Order: sequence, then structure tokens, then C-alpha cells
Amino acid sequence: MERRVVKVGLLGLGTVGSGVVKMLRTKQEELAQKCGYEIEIQRILVRDLDKKRGVDVERSLLTRDVRDILDDPEVQIVIEVMGGESGTRDIVLESLLSGKHVITANKDLVALHGAQLHNAADSKNVELLYEAAVAGAIPIVRVLKQSFAADQVREVMGIVNGTTNFILSKMTQENASYEDALREAQALGYAEADPHADVSGLDAARKMAILASISMRQAVPLADVQLQGIEGVTQEDIAEAKALGLVIKLIGRARREGDAIEVSVSPMRLPDSHPLAQVNDCFNAVYVYADALGEAMLYGRGAGEMPTASAVVGDLLAVLRGRKFAAQQQVEWIGRLA
Amino acid sequence: MERRVVKVGLLGLGTVGSGVVKMLRTKQEELAQKCGYEIEIQRILVRDLDKKRGVDVERSLLTRDVRDILDDPEVQIVIEVMGGESGTRDIVLESLLSGKHVITANKDLVALHGAQLHNAADSKNVELLYEAAVAGAIPIVRVLKQSFAADQVREVMGIVNGTTNFILSKMTQENASYEDALREAQALGYAEADPHADVSGLDAARKMAILASISMRQAVPLADVQLQGIEGVTQEDIAEAKALGLVIKLIGRARREGDAIEVSVSPMRLPDSHPLAQVNDCFNAVYVYADALGEAMLYGRGAGEMPTASAVVGDLLAVLRGRKFAAQQQVEWIGRLA
Repeated sequence: MERRVVKVGLLGLGTVGSGVVKMLRTKQEELAQKCGYEIEIQRILVRDLDKKRGVDVERSLLTRDVRDILDDPEVQIVIEVMGGESGTRDIVLESLLSGKHVITANKDLVALHGAQLHNAADSKNVELLYEAAVAGAIPIVRVLKQSFAADQVREVMGIVNGTTNFILSKMTQENASYEDALREAQALGYAEADPHADVSGLDAARKMAILASISMRQAVPLADVQLQGIEGVTQEDIAEAKALGLVIKLIGRARREGDAIEVSVSPMRLPDSHPLAQVNDCFNAVYVYADALGEAMLYGRGAGEMPTASAVVGDLLAVLRGRKFAAQQQVEWIGRLA
Repeated sequence: MERRVVKVGLLGLGTVGSGVVKMLRTKQEELAQKCGYEIEIQRILVRDLDKKRGVDVERSLLTRDVRDILDDPEVQIVIEVMGGESGTRDIVLESLLSGKHVITANKDLVALHGAQLHNAADSKNVELLYEAAVAGAIPIVRVLKQSFAADQVREVMGIVNGTTNFILSKMTQENASYEDALREAQALGYAEADPHADVSGLDAARKMAILASISMRQAVPLADVQLQGIEGVTQEDIAEAKALGLVIKLIGRARREGDAIEVSVSPMRLPDSHPLAQVNDCFNAVYVYADALGEAMLYGRGAGEMPTASAVVGDLLAVLRGRKFAAQQQVEWIGRLA
């Protein structure tokens, strides 16, 4: 089979971006065999041209001007791994509206602007994929969209924030206080100096807004997610639960209640025998209950450079093997003939 | 969007076949919205035209002659849920070679003839999908093919036979003897009157041959799977393991050893803390270790009418939304114009 070249624009060259570049390089031949395209990075948007990177990149690939990517008709696919919200939304929106497929790892973007971005993608018949935005190594987005496509999902429960799960695991297994467990998480780099987004449940709420929207097939705004963090969980709460054979976990939950979708994030007491009760440390897991399939759970690491990069490259392959990309190629081909 | 009709031939109308018919009927409108096609069952192959079925079907849809499906150019997709090996292989092979996409729930077929069938599908650029053939409700085939597509899988460990997991769970949790646990499984309909295929590990071996072939991207013949069943596991073995904090599970395992792929099914002692140790009763789970993604696990029911039917219909949607089906439609369209 003759191989064509596909050109990709990369927005951001931080941890995940560097992981993506590494993967595309080391797996170039393997990926080409799988999708029939040689994947080339055309341009990389960065803030600082001179910063030391986790990967060696030719200087000529770097640009500080996003127009070098948006206005380049050769760039058919944009990978967004720079983070941010409103500015990033404008860039992603313009990419989609100009007929470029987009892959993003940005949960804030998808949680806040997912509906708008999906509409833009649909209007141009291009793909918008974001497996890496929720629970890094767990292919939950693909599974909900594809494997449950013929089913009706009733409930999704997830441990989708590794930092809080680490803290609660330490408090449960080692009788640590909340403060000590948080300090250990910070020392290990699992929690930020300002841990608010994690411990307040906000990060989990963003992911649950995305999972609820996909699984219930109805846009769930972030503002509708009821939110309670783990700051109020004490050693006593945990000991009391343990005595009853229960484990406290920060659980994101999305349920159908009649026509409404209820989404919440809060500390919950689960029986020891619940599949989510055994998910410890930085691991994530998502438990799904659907009419036909019954109960299922996916479990894996929530974050990390290579898991996230791998999810991004998985999405890239999905674009290249998908119907929308093929249709676009065809239209372009016919255009050239005319 | 204008909706076209796609015609499906169904081979078999047992438990799974009836579930597929039910699902296609009750979800007709929803499925059409998702894939842009109205799915019609054109013909159903059965052995006995007069048998009572789990679903009401017009008599005129039924046929005992497979040629009514194979020779019908309107049938673009064949769903094989009748079971069997060599005869079924010939039918599936002919379907593929005549340009029909095939979805099958038949693990014996895929384990024994997967390589030959894949070659046929590739030669005609049609799909061959079999999510329902391995671990019913767990979308492990799709996840291995797509989400791990950019990754290198090092090891797969699975509890892929619900009957033996039920028996071992009873022996572990209730100190039942092997014989009593087997009798209970038979009384509940989890085990056949002749339980050999399950307890010998043969059923698990077939599924592991399939999972190993997909995950390691190299055909693994069933004959290469090393096999040990659970018939020799005693109450004493289980008690001894328990005292050491270990649990005995029937584990299917596929590993890269240098250039070779080693696949085995055997009772293994797992530490309590291993994610697979907590998988009990009829549940299945597959644990994957890959270079980039690290460890991940999928968990769910292994079988059942609706889980299996749901997996089949999920595959059907995947065909209709995929690149190969779209390409075929295009060729047909151009042919009509010419």
C-alpha cells in the first residue's frame, strides 16, 4: 500500500507534548503500518523558543505564533496539549471550523466548552477526540462511546482523581491524618503546592461532567455537578467506616433520575466488596452500570507522561483509521481532479 | 441526513441471536441516529423452522438454506451466532470473500481459524469483528486493538471463564469442596452437565489464544497454549494459600519472552492485593501491562444473553461507522453511476 503523509500541528510541548513527540518518533514505522499514513509533526506551538525540553526538537519546528498552525492548510490534525481554557477554546474552535480534526488532553476545555466544540466538529464532519482528558490510562471515553453505544447507561461511578485517592488510601491503610497524608502527596509530587483543585473535588467534577455527558448522551454543564471535597474527612470518619466494613472514597457519580441527570462528587462509604473499594493509591477506576451489559469496571493509572501520551496517540490513530478522515481525503482528491 | 437501509443476515437464532433481534428492534431509531443507517434483518438461518424462539420472528425471515444469505448481494453484513467450527468457518470465509462484513460471537471459530479469517477479511477490505467472543460484557477486544494501538503490550492476565471462577470463589469463600462447588454451579446453570470444556481450562485457553493474538499482534495457535485445569485444586490448596494471604484463581496469561509469545492457562496463587484477586463469582476480568500505559484492568460479566447481544450490536455499529464500510458504499455508488 502506498503511504501518504499526514501533517500534524502540536499545541504545547510540556510533559505530555514531549511524550507525544517521543512516541511518534520511536513508533513511526509501526504507526504507519497500522494506519497507512506517515505522521509528520509540521509545527509545534510553544511559549518560549529557548526553554529546555524533555525531548530534542529541531528549532525550525517551533513557533510562538499559533497562526503558523491554524493558517497552514497542510495541517489536517491538531493535537492540543497546552492546557488553558478560554484562549485555548478559541484556537480549538477555529481549528475545527477550518476542517482540522482535533485531539485534546484538556479536561477543563472539554468540561466547560465540550458542547460548543462538538457542534463545531459536527458541522464540519471532523473528529474531536479526548481520551487523555479523563483518567489517563483508562480508555473510558472510547468504551462509553463505542462499546456502550448500543446500550443505555444507568449509572457511572468513578474514582477519577488520583491525588485524593492517594490521600484517602494513606488515611485508611496507615491511619495517617488528612494533613500528613496531604503533605506526603505533595512531597511525592502527586499534589500541587496549592491542592485546592484536587481536594475540593473540582478536578473530579470536571471529569465527571465529561463522563456524564458521554454516557448519558446529553450535555451536562460543569455548574450542575454537586460538589463536596475531602477536606472535611477525618481519621475518626475513616475508623468508624472501617469498623462497619466500609471504605471512604471520593466518588464521582452520574445517574439518570427520570429525565434528569444527577451528577455529584463527594466522599462516599462503600462496602469492602464493591469493586471500587479496592482501588487504592494513585489509581483511577470507573464503574458503569448499563441495561444490557450490566456492570463493568475499568481500572488503571490516572495520569503520567507516557500513559497520557499513549492515549493521545491512540486517538490520533483512531482519527486516521476513521470514516471522517477518509471522507475528507476523498473530497480533497475529487477536488484535485476537478 | 438521508437514511439508507443496510441489510443484515443473521446466522443462528438461539439465546444470543434472539437477544440481537430484540435489541435491533427496540433500539431501531436510536441506532439509526447513531450510524445513519436503518438496520434491517434480511434473513435468519435456523436449523428448525418450527422451533419456539425467545423472540417472535416472521416466518418468512427464517431459512434453513445458508445460500439464501450467502448469495444475496443485498446482505452486506453477516452476524454469526450459531456456533460450531469447521462448517461455520466455511460459511464465514465465503461471506468475507464475497465482500460481506462479519461479526461473530464464536470464540472457537476465532481461536482456531482467526488467522485465516483475518487474511480473507483483509484481502477484501471488509471488517471481521468479535467483541462478544471474549469475556462478553468486557470490551477487551476493542480496547486492545484501539486504545493500546500505539503501545506495546508486555503481558495480559485474565480471569476469562466464569464457571471456574464461580467454583474457586465458592471453595475460597465458603470452604466448599470442588465437587460441591461444581454441583452448585451446575444447579445454577453456570456449568454444563459435562463441565469438561470449562474445568479443564479449554474454554479459557481459546479466549487466551484470541487475546494473545490481538495484544501481541502475532497469531497464536490454540495448540500453543499450555493448559492446566482446576480439577486438581483441593480445599487444602486453597486453605494453604489463604494462610499466606494468597488467592487461587484460574489465570490465563500471555507474555512476551524475547521474540516468543508464551501463553498458558493454569491455577495461580495471587496476592490478595492483586487487582485480579478480588474478582469473584461469575465475573471476568482482564489485566493488561503495557510499556506506556502501565497497568490497566477491565472487569465485567463474562456471558449472558443481553451482554453478549449488546457486544454484537456494538460491533455492528462499529462496522457501520467505520472506514471500510464507507469505502465499500462509495465503490458501489461509483459502480452505479458508471
